[in-house]
Amino acid sequence: MAQQATADVGLIGLAVMGQNLALNMADHGYRVAVFNRTTDVMKKFVASENPPGGLVGCENLKDFVASIKKPRKIIILVKAGPAIDAVTKQLFEAGVEPDDIVVDCGNSLWTDTIRREKEYAAKCKFFGSGVSGGEVGARFGPSMMPGGDPASWKHLEPIWKAVAAKVDAQTGKPIETASPGKPVVGGVPCTTYLGPNGAGHYVKMVHNGIEYIDMQLICEAYTLLSNLLGMKAPELSKVFGTWNEGDLDSYLIQITEDILKQPDPVHKEGYLVDYVLDAAGQKGTGKWTSVNALDMGIPANSIAEAVFARCLSALKEERVEASKKLKGPAPSHSGNRDELIAAVRDALYCSKICAYAQGFQLMREAQKEYNWTFDFAAIASIFRGGCIIRARFLQKIMDAYTRDKNLVNLLLDSYFNEQIQKSQSNWRKVVALAATNGIAAPAFMSALAYYDGYRAERLPANLLQAQRDYFGAHTYERIDAPRGKAFHLDWPEPGRPQVDIVPGSGGGH
Amino acid sequence: MAQQATADVGLIGLAVMGQNLALNMADHGYRVAVFNRTTDVMKKFVASENPPGGLVGCENLKDFVASIKKPRKIIILVKAGPAIDAVTKQLFEAGVEPDDIVVDCGNSLWTDTIRREKEYAAKCKFFGSGVSGGEVGARFGPSMMPGGDPASWKHLEPIWKAVAAKVDAQTGKPIETASPGKPVVGGVPCTTYLGPNGAGHYVKMVHNGIEYIDMQLICEAYTLLSNLLGMKAPELSKVFGTWNEGDLDSYLIQITEDILKQPDPVHKEGYLVDYVLDAAGQKGTGKWTSVNALDMGIPANSIAEAVFARCLSALKEERVEASKKLKGPAPSHSGNRDELIAAVRDALYCSKICAYAQGFQLMREAQKEYNWTFDFAAIASIFRGGCIIRARFLQKIMDAYTRDKNLVNLLLDSYFNEQIQKSQSNWRKVVALAATNGIAAPAFMSALAYYDGYRAERLPANLLQAQRDYFGAHTYERIDAPRGKAFHLDWPEPGRPQVDIVPGSGGGH
Repeated sequence: MAQQATADVGLIGLAVMGQNLALNMADHGYRVAVFNRTTDVMKKFVASENPPGGLVGCENLKDFVASIKKPRKIIILVKAGPAIDAVTKQLFEAGVEPDDIVVDCGNSLWTDTIRREKEYAAKCKFFGSGVSGGEVGARFGPSMMPGGDPASWKHLEPIWKAVAAKVDAQTGKPIETASPGKPVVGGVPCTTYLGPNGAGHYVKMVHNGIEYIDMQLICEAYTLLSNLLGMKAPELSKVFGTWNEGDLDSYLIQITEDILKQPDPVHKEGYLVDYVLDAAGQKGTGKWTSVNALDMGIPANSIAEAVFARCLSALKEERVEASKKLKGPAPSHSGNRDELIAAVRDALYCSKICAYAQGFQLMREAQKEYNWTFDFAAIASIFRGGCIIRARFLQKIMDAYTRDKNLVNLLLDSYFNEQIQKSQSNWRKVVALAATNGIAAPAFMSALAYYDGYRAERLPANLLQAQRDYFGAHTYERIDAPRGKAFHLDWPEPGRPQVDIVPGSGGGH
Repeated sequence: MAQQATADVGLIGLAVMGQNLALNMADHGYRVAVFNRTTDVMKKFVASENPPGGLVGCENLKDFVASIKKPRKIIILVKAGPAIDAVTKQLFEAGVEPDDIVVDCGNSLWTDTIRREKEYAAKCKFFGSGVSGGEVGARFGPSMMPGGDPASWKHLEPIWKAVAAKVDAQTGKPIETASPGKPVVGGVPCTTYLGPNGAGHYVKMVHNGIEYIDMQLICEAYTLLSNLLGMKAPELSKVFGTWNEGDLDSYLIQITEDILKQPDPVHKEGYLVDYVLDAAGQKGTGKWTSVNALDMGIPANSIAEAVFARCLSALKEERVEASKKLKGPAPSHSGNRDELIAAVRDALYCSKICAYAQGFQLMREAQKEYNWTFDFAAIASIFRGGCIIRARFLQKIMDAYTRDKNLVNLLLDSYFNEQIQKSQSNWRKVVALAATNGIAAPAFMSALAYYDGYRAERLPANLLQAQRDYFGAHTYERIDAPRGKAFHLDWPEPGRPQVDIVPGSGGGH
């Protein structure tokens, strides 16, 4: 029996994200063909849902492909990695044609997307799109970060704009009134074409790297307040609730408020957060961001610190043993309580600005490396709604890049500069308190070191270059000579051989 | 004319390191065949030197191979990367046989060495050895870090032990009395067999990663003292000279003393260090170490901060512009000058302990991943002399691992724990001063955050795990449940869909 091509779009992979994205599309009137490796999951899903556009449940990939109108638009939402290639190749066998668009909506490494687009070019239009927003975002409006062939984008654009989160055109605030079957109408969709091949997945990766540090900063604020002031979960919840009404207004602060007041579902008393084990998991995108920063030589130290903080937390048993042996000061605070809360807020805010400055600096560099042309105001604009890092703050970043699209660093924008000027003394105070009270605050500290390093006309790398020339003949530049001119001194070390210097020959330092 | 096999060993690549290592071997009575891509360099070298063992200059690789006694021992000292493979393959064409040992003494990535050993197994014994010590070390005694086939090591061992730096058997201090033609006799050689395939290059990489942070810590001490106390180069030189007489006694502190008193060779007055441009170079091994730490999930945050500090320094023009716009406090210090100098010393010392703890933690993890069995006391012992990080400190590390070869973390050793207990209040004070005075101290800070994080029985990752479960259904563990048991809450977010949770399906966070 020949399958009729009635579906507007297909989706493979019916885990929570896949189911929700399928429902989101169908809520907007798109008829969605769905396939899942385990057929039962598909059947249960199709049987239990009846969204406006309709779902077409398919038990095999041949039927799935045949059920989609041409040029086919097929979204893959399976585990990043080899599974993407496996599914793509199965699609070719199942009848996908060269004009069909296969969209990887997972968290794929952008270089894989670049590779796949090339590798599969004769057989399909391979496209990569980041999707951020977790379960709820996928269901009612995520931030969508598409990258690939511009002609393919024209086919995807209506769907992407329909399903993406919407923000208010005037305020930039997310419009969150969707419910099953009733999507948001109007507003500015949180999606924009980012560039060819891996551009979308690259931006999604940096988004996730920023998310890592955003979360770590909240954790540090939480631990400082609970250690220095002895605040308990419900009190802390109120603090985050208050912060959520100001400059820090964001999804992550808001869910922190929720989390901290969540009673423990197991015990009759107490709060869930106090029963959660302090060993963080990670799935790799923060690591990728840090590795990419190292590869490109861009100082995204705070993002890396957030990743390392998760690594350290994961050594739970080791830490418990170490805590019995390694002593430090007992945390205490004798000053004004409200002043300290305000200071921690300022430390969080300033650190957050630095974290975003690092993330945008990464994208600035990557676009040179991969021949992309990013519109940073547009990137900030699509982060305003739907995604995990959505925040009022993103409107400010959008404004900054609208004022100057070639802004070299977010810190140099007048608004952010002013914010830091206003708040930096509190930030410094909080870092000093963390240090003297023995409370680990790697993200607050690294952000401050980034700020102070970035604004340093002169760093002590002169000494470092002299050391490298001393032991390895790596040469140095001089402040009174043109850049690029290499100098070397025959340092008067006893026993130093008098040989001609081949610059930089002394080993890989 | 058939070449007579008279050479004990061959060496390819006559840049400074290669020339010096050849002379070092020949000083110990080994007859060394030498080859260089540019023949003139070889001719000039052979013409100008006449070491005891003798040099055999070869104009082509065939003669070179033929001139070495079997089984041949051939050292390659060319640029790490594709050149190693190119030279190795040329050697096969030039007559190298399966029993011959080809030793890569460059800074190769350990995974390349693992790959090469396998790839070339039928054609030669491919061996990897790290060499540290810069020019002078190569000439009069480097630290040698060999890894590869144990049978090959037996052939190399006499040469490696001869040329390596020597330390005093009683004190562990480097014996530095060599001069051309008169090598050190006696003492304990700074080389030991580290393990199969890439083990030697891995240890060398971590050595270099530690070197990065060691140098950065010195730079931070330098900038803090010069900014807070207004100290000039020659005064600072004296401070480092004093430090070199205590626990910080090390090659890098000693050359810092030398560097800071070096007059500028261009101008009639002033000191060279003040004319050196503050933009650091790097050749990749610090980056590799950091990437490896991220890959293995080991918190080597201070090593990464040292790499990022070099990246930030390299943005010189950007910093100069930023310094005009981004304000901070004016550094000042009203306390006792000598107390501050002592406090900075303590901060440097404590941070250094953490840096080495991170480096050794990396090796501990890597040995599991690659099936190596490291003897950490032996590794510390071969770092005592010859290499760039050589220091009195390494004897203490050797002692620590001799006390307990399964020591989980250097911080847990009684000696180092005691040192930190004694000095940590000064360390904390210096970090607080850096923060309040606007002086970038990423390495001091990250080391402190590492210490305080490592000794924290509870970190705020409980909140982070709750966040991940909230937005992405990543699940969490509980403190009152067995490890590995996953919990998930249907968080009461408005609009959250009631679907079965597939753990960790909410994206790659």
